[in-house]
Amino acid sequence: MGEFSFIQWIRERQKRRKDVILGIGDDCAAINVSSGRLCLITTDMLVAGTHFDLKKCSVRDVGRKAIACSISDMAAMGCMATVAVISVCFPDHTTEKFAQELYKGIWSIADKYDIEIVGGDIISGHSPLCINVTMLGRDEGLKPVRRSGARVGDKILVTGTLGGSLLGKHLYFEPRIKEGIVLNRNFSIHAMIDISDGLTADLNHILEESQVGAILYEDRIPISQAAVEISKKTGNPPLYHALSDGEDYELLFTLSKGQAKKVMESPLFKKGIFSCIGEVVRCNGIQMRFSDGKIRRVKPHGYEHLKS
Amino acid sequence: MGEFSFIQWIRERQKRRKDVILGIGDDCAAINVSSGRLCLITTDMLVAGTHFDLKKCSVRDVGRKAIACSISDMAAMGCMATVAVISVCFPDHTTEKFAQELYKGIWSIADKYDIEIVGGDIISGHSPLCINVTMLGRDEGLKPVRRSGARVGDKILVTGTLGGSLLGKHLYFEPRIKEGIVLNRNFSIHAMIDISDGLTADLNHILEESQVGAILYEDRIPISQAAVEISKKTGNPPLYHALSDGEDYELLFTLSKGQAKKVMESPLFKKGIFSCIGEVVRCNGIQMRFSDGKIRRVKPHGYEHLKS
Repeated sequence: MGEFSFIQWIRERQKRRKDVILGIGDDCAAINVSSGRLCLITTDMLVAGTHFDLKKCSVRDVGRKAIACSISDMAAMGCMATVAVISVCFPDHTTEKFAQELYKGIWSIADKYDIEIVGGDIISGHSPLCINVTMLGRDEGLKPVRRSGARVGDKILVTGTLGGSLLGKHLYFEPRIKEGIVLNRNFSIHAMIDISDGLTADLNHILEESQVGAILYEDRIPISQAAVEISKKTGNPPLYHALSDGEDYELLFTLSKGQAKKVMESPLFKKGIFSCIGEVVRCNGIQMRFSDGKIRRVKPHGYEHLKS
Repeated sequence: MGEFSFIQWIRERQKRRKDVILGIGDDCAAINVSSGRLCLITTDMLVAGTHFDLKKCSVRDVGRKAIACSISDMAAMGCMATVAVISVCFPDHTTEKFAQELYKGIWSIADKYDIEIVGGDIISGHSPLCINVTMLGRDEGLKPVRRSGARVGDKILVTGTLGGSLLGKHLYFEPRIKEGIVLNRNFSIHAMIDISDGLTADLNHILEESQVGAILYEDRIPISQAAVEISKKTGNPPLYHALSDGEDYELLFTLSKGQAKKVMESPLFKKGIFSCIGEVVRCNGIQMRFSDGKIRRVKPHGYEHLKS
């Protein structure tokens, strides 16, 4: 069983309510609360051994990451995060100091973005540390940016640099929520997602939801220094890591050629933050235009849970 | 470390937002979404080995229970449940059939109460099965019933019968959401909670939040048949189980003497569903009036996570 096929199975069987504007299948769901205002909701679970290794990071880092992941989902909708509820399953014999350190990490980023933790569930079990964050957000009078709006001819843009997040970024990334909201407020963004599974895997989510394809430009993929470093250890080229590594939590979005030019030149953003890495085409799947001019197919590659 | 002292530690340190009407410390939190309408939110985590035993129940039962617990929290606010997001950490090598059975259990109760699952997170880990449900609700134009409104002189009422839920009710209980909303709509309920930790433990939550005490009437506690049966195995009296066993998911609430009489006689409810088990007094803590007329102190007793 794969994570994505199972989610698809759920999605096809789920009964719908009238007040749900956007259900399963995007970064957040959106619920019409009253008179056209939307309440956004997203949830993320992190478990020790899969999402973090307490031998390699502090529990405070884990708390920070748990909140930052959900903020990143809200950013990918171009909406504002407001409150969160947090459930934690602590392993048996957890000390008070350890538990408090987790919350200090949570607050280190929640306070920064004015997110109030309004509730939660604290349990214990014979299990590794497991944290679930559910975050609510507001539409701020804007339309949430879905994954499904990419159009043929769109340019594909990404923030920051990609790959090798395991060397630290997966813990210490700054969620792109300001950029997400500024993009949504000032430009016509057709589709947006945050890169959690990996560039090609997450691009593929946009393409499948929008029923289009993409050509990536090999020489425009913003390869991070961490991707270069990690490639020395793995033997894979840095480009491979930029395309496949998960947890960069950068924003990946599509918009018209004219709008893309405006975004790239806008004084609203820090210079050089965006890379135009490709374009949306009719033909399904992902292709890559290599520096030799040749175009070849690329298989979406990234992390998928439950895949054996 | 105990669960409750840790929650208190969190509560004292959490920064507050203006749009949060009700934060940590009740069955649900309440957020003002726009123009006075409230969005309720509650979250519950269940982990194998602590909340259920897959040797003694099916995974479908677990899915049902996960949703039912959150509906019960919404009932305890006198509000309507609407949508939920669900995170699941499946153990490594989970089969598709097992995962689907979980969702069939989820839908068996979600559909019944018109709750849409609008999103979630499906992960896998080297861990026991862990499920987190975050549920949203609507105020329906009513005021959410908090834990903190109990007043001296109030009568204390409870739905159903108590104790021995381990024999089955903890899995198959029907959340009292209709009763919760009808109570909130038609009567002036001062304080309400659902019994998840145990009668005395949950009553104590109301008393502490309201800064009052209570006298329970020994001969009025509605002891379930299951409490009688389980007492044969444990050697403890049935009353002990009715007072201390958790997960009955009945509603426990306080209201004026006059209103209590009206509730007890109301044709809006099934006959015999309510028991008047005591009264709210000024003196802190819980006392019990035994059938011999004597009044003795009772220590709140129930399940608390992380308590060693």
